[in-house]
Amino acid sequence: MNRESAIELHRYLKGKLSIEPKVDVLDKKDLSLVYTPGVGFVSQEIAKDKDSVYDYTWKSNTVAVVSDGSAVLGLGNIGPESALPVMEGKALLIKQFAGINAIPICIRTKSWEELVEIVYSISPTFGLILLEDIKAPECFRVEEALEKILDIPFFHDDQHGTAVAVLAGLINALKIVGKDKGSCKVVISGAGAAGTAVTYLLLDYGFRNIIVCDSKGIISVDRNDLNEYKFKLAQATNPEKLSGRLEDAVKGADIFIGLSAPNIVSKEMILSMATDRVVFAMANPIPEISYDEAVSLGTKVVATGRSDYPNQINNLLVFPGLIKGLLRSRKKLDSKIKIRASEAIADIVTEEELEKGIIVPSPFNQLVVERVVEAIV
Amino acid sequence: MNRESAIELHRYLKGKLSIEPKVDVLDKKDLSLVYTPGVGFVSQEIAKDKDSVYDYTWKSNTVAVVSDGSAVLGLGNIGPESALPVMEGKALLIKQFAGINAIPICIRTKSWEELVEIVYSISPTFGLILLEDIKAPECFRVEEALEKILDIPFFHDDQHGTAVAVLAGLINALKIVGKDKGSCKVVISGAGAAGTAVTYLLLDYGFRNIIVCDSKGIISVDRNDLNEYKFKLAQATNPEKLSGRLEDAVKGADIFIGLSAPNIVSKEMILSMATDRVVFAMANPIPEISYDEAVSLGTKVVATGRSDYPNQINNLLVFPGLIKGLLRSRKKLDSKIKIRASEAIADIVTEEELEKGIIVPSPFNQLVVERVVEAIV
Repeated sequence: MNRESAIELHRYLKGKLSIEPKVDVLDKKDLSLVYTPGVGFVSQEIAKDKDSVYDYTWKSNTVAVVSDGSAVLGLGNIGPESALPVMEGKALLIKQFAGINAIPICIRTKSWEELVEIVYSISPTFGLILLEDIKAPECFRVEEALEKILDIPFFHDDQHGTAVAVLAGLINALKIVGKDKGSCKVVISGAGAAGTAVTYLLLDYGFRNIIVCDSKGIISVDRNDLNEYKFKLAQATNPEKLSGRLEDAVKGADIFIGLSAPNIVSKEMILSMATDRVVFAMANPIPEISYDEAVSLGTKVVATGRSDYPNQINNLLVFPGLIKGLLRSRKKLDSKIKIRASEAIADIVTEEELEKGIIVPSPFNQLVVERVVEAIV
Repeated sequence: MNRESAIELHRYLKGKLSIEPKVDVLDKKDLSLVYTPGVGFVSQEIAKDKDSVYDYTWKSNTVAVVSDGSAVLGLGNIGPESALPVMEGKALLIKQFAGINAIPICIRTKSWEELVEIVYSISPTFGLILLEDIKAPECFRVEEALEKILDIPFFHDDQHGTAVAVLAGLINALKIVGKDKGSCKVVISGAGAAGTAVTYLLLDYGFRNIIVCDSKGIISVDRNDLNEYKFKLAQATNPEKLSGRLEDAVKGADIFIGLSAPNIVSKEMILSMATDRVVFAMANPIPEISYDEAVSLGTKVVATGRSDYPNQINNLLVFPGLIKGLLRSRKKLDSKIKIRASEAIADIVTEEELEKGIIVPSPFNQLVVERVVEAIV
């Protein structure tokens, strides 16, 4: 992959998705069935029983991929037009991996409140709303507001897709290092959308000693520069009330999870961790510490977000199955479902693979979507 | 066509559209091109030059079909879920007839202002917005507001698709009856979305003597029950300042255009019109007067909105070509474009067909879209 071939492909395709009729309209009779007057009878049926919209329309198999373009990949707030090729890509993957129709909808908004209003307004058309690339802490406010008003499932993939993928990898990493979740010291670097969601899922799963760091260091209740979401994080984590910088946090840690910035973890920091340590360095495209360096320092389990190294912890392991499962079951996403999804993904890895240090399946393994759906439905 | 077969087909299909990837993702290399990290370079290109979103995404060939479900077919304000099968049908026709991707978006709103805000917000994703089945007079307010803020073409099909189709038919009807537009007396029954848009297009085309009636009778400046849009209509029409009921209006009229309600035109009313009269009775599914009765009374040209009689005046003649032409040219819709589209459709009808009383082509005639696009681009 290089820059030119990606740009060239996009210029050639002019859009990665096509809308195709599932039925031909070749004559007046066809027209009278799929359009007026026939479709009027279908509308009347739905008017009588709103829930029958799932029986007569695409709603049962169609999701919207909504972004305001405020946190696109690692590129920041580059706006809805620039987010469109990313959302088209996500929609393409949803169709290819899960067989679900997905519509990219990139929106121009002035506030998170407006984003909530728009998602609510368009929701009659879709069976699920996937939120994408929305910056923190607005993404948390959006989810809290939607929780109260939306009658279909939804989730912010940067939060929950990532959290489920990380937990899946951790479940297997613990098997390899032979440690117990309740007694591990976990350091999470990054308190944005992903770091926050990972922290809460690990707490719900049973990890007890988690220390979260943002760019200013360890998040603790003593700090006076925290927004409400980071303050809540401080209350839920850091039981030993540590303060200091990331290098202070990682001393003696069993597990490091990076969802932050490139090259911020040094050789010395890795060596200051516990023996049989686990390092997930997932900043993209450049990790907190390179895969090769972390391995060369004797780290027992190493994972990154990159496809060109082993153990790629990627949302693609999660979102196709999660979307399909929630859509089929019409369930709202909660911690129990997320944990079941993580366990289902972890279970796909064989004993033989674990022995080789492999902790997650390939996203191209067709079992992944199937097992996640089974775990939810 | 019967009710059961339309419902059965919709229940079987569960959605009339499918989203299909235009490129396969079979391995990590494909993934790196259509998704991360490759797509990030495309996003950066668009961030540098926002207009290049037309080169790299589906925007150049994709439209949204937006409805609030407030005036669905003849069924009234039945809501967004009930509107969805209709919008899916419209989207299907847009793809099949014009090769353009169309996405149904049925929205739940509390006001026309909110509808405007939502259309504006989602507009970065699409190349054109087609508004559908929005009740009057809100539909006029929505268009006026969007005119000021939207940077892509848009139109309300119930207004302008209908107006272009009616004018196309009238151009040929005048050839058959050998009358001049400037001296014809035209009566339009119906002052909703369609009646209003037809009236203004006929005025722009050069008709001078138009009388519009609503359910209360002739619209004139003397009435004190008119909303602002009907008052403007009154100022622009009715040069002889007539008042009274529809039966008073039609006396001596050369042309009757019905966009109103079933069976409201009697035999006597038709016979009170001028000789060589033209009757378009387009209330759906039951016209203002039946095709057979209007013909049996010696009416020279008769058209309806029904597919089971000759001369079906239907938006399907217009919207595929109009959408394609506006999308290709990125022009905003105006009267000149509408008139050119009407003339292009009228021109497809041959001398031989005119002699048989045929005034519009079949919507399945492949020349229709092609000629309308040529007329616009």
